[in-house]
Amino acid sequence: MSTSVILTKEEFLQHWLGHRTLTRKTIEKFPEQELFSYNIGGMRTFADLVMELLSIAEPGLRGIVQKREEPYNHSLGITTKEALLEKWDADTPLIIDWYNQIPEADFHEEYNLFGEYKFPIYSNLLYFVDNEIHHRAQGFVYLRALGIEPPFFWDRY
Amino acid sequence: MSTSVILTKEEFLQHWLGHRTLTRKTIEKFPEQELFSYNIGGMRTFADLVMELLSIAEPGLRGIVQKREEPYNHSLGITTKEALLEKWDADTPLIIDWYNQIPEADFHEEYNLFGEYKFPIYSNLLYFVDNEIHHRAQGFVYLRALGIEPPFFWDRY
Repeated sequence: MSTSVILTKEEFLQHWLGHRTLTRKTIEKFPEQELFSYNIGGMRTFADLVMELLSIAEPGLRGIVQKREEPYNHSLGITTKEALLEKWDADTPLIIDWYNQIPEADFHEEYNLFGEYKFPIYSNLLYFVDNEIHHRAQGFVYLRALGIEPPFFWDRY
Repeated sequence: MSTSVILTKEEFLQHWLGHRTLTRKTIEKFPEQELFSYNIGGMRTFADLVMELLSIAEPGLRGIVQKREEPYNHSLGITTKEALLEKWDADTPLIIDWYNQIPEADFHEEYNLFGEYKFPIYSNLLYFVDNEIHHRAQGFVYLRALGIEPPFFWDRY
């Protein structure tokens, strides 16, 4: 393409990793019991929302790199805060590694994510981050309803 | 820069406009009274959150283009759902127009947004969209708590 670069591949990764740091801080703010039991309006618990994020990020990137279109599985069966944070941390280097394996030239190639969502890879990746922001924000409301101050939205460090 | 384009300037704009469409649908779902009165955990009403978004998007872009670093003003004084939607719609062509005036080559230039947030322009723009996703998601929880089904997260059309 002849257009200039408005956002580099590395900048997008750092942007996502900053959001993952903030999501981790949000998990940490929850008391263990409420993390796995509290919800508003019949929505999922924050632990369930986080398990959705985990079932999308690393498996989604792996699928893009390996060109395998396997369905996602949101049921990770994690039942403690410690295990949820461990899984979060274990996935970080894998996310970086898979992401770095996607050639820049492929970002505009279509990929049928999870055998279901056929979009350009850049669009799939934006979805991963958007979806994380979306569900984390729901966690912010849960925290407020529980009388707990959430992290600052800009605190990605 | 020598790196390839992972996301064009136009793709980013379309991505944002899709999110704005979804935020508009979210506003529409609220009954007028709850839009301006309902909150959870001492948070702002959804109307107040939307006024924050309005006070960032068009004024922020205008500041970037005109290189004026004026502070933001979240108090728009809008008191009806109709006026809020009208303002939302009136800002859309302005957002497109200002955005298109930012040269691609400037996306990595630093800009002191609202005289307060000194980051590269690409980073300021990502923040606009992230912040919209974040606050809209809080509106989704308000809707669920009110027994109203929010729009689909992927419905950006």
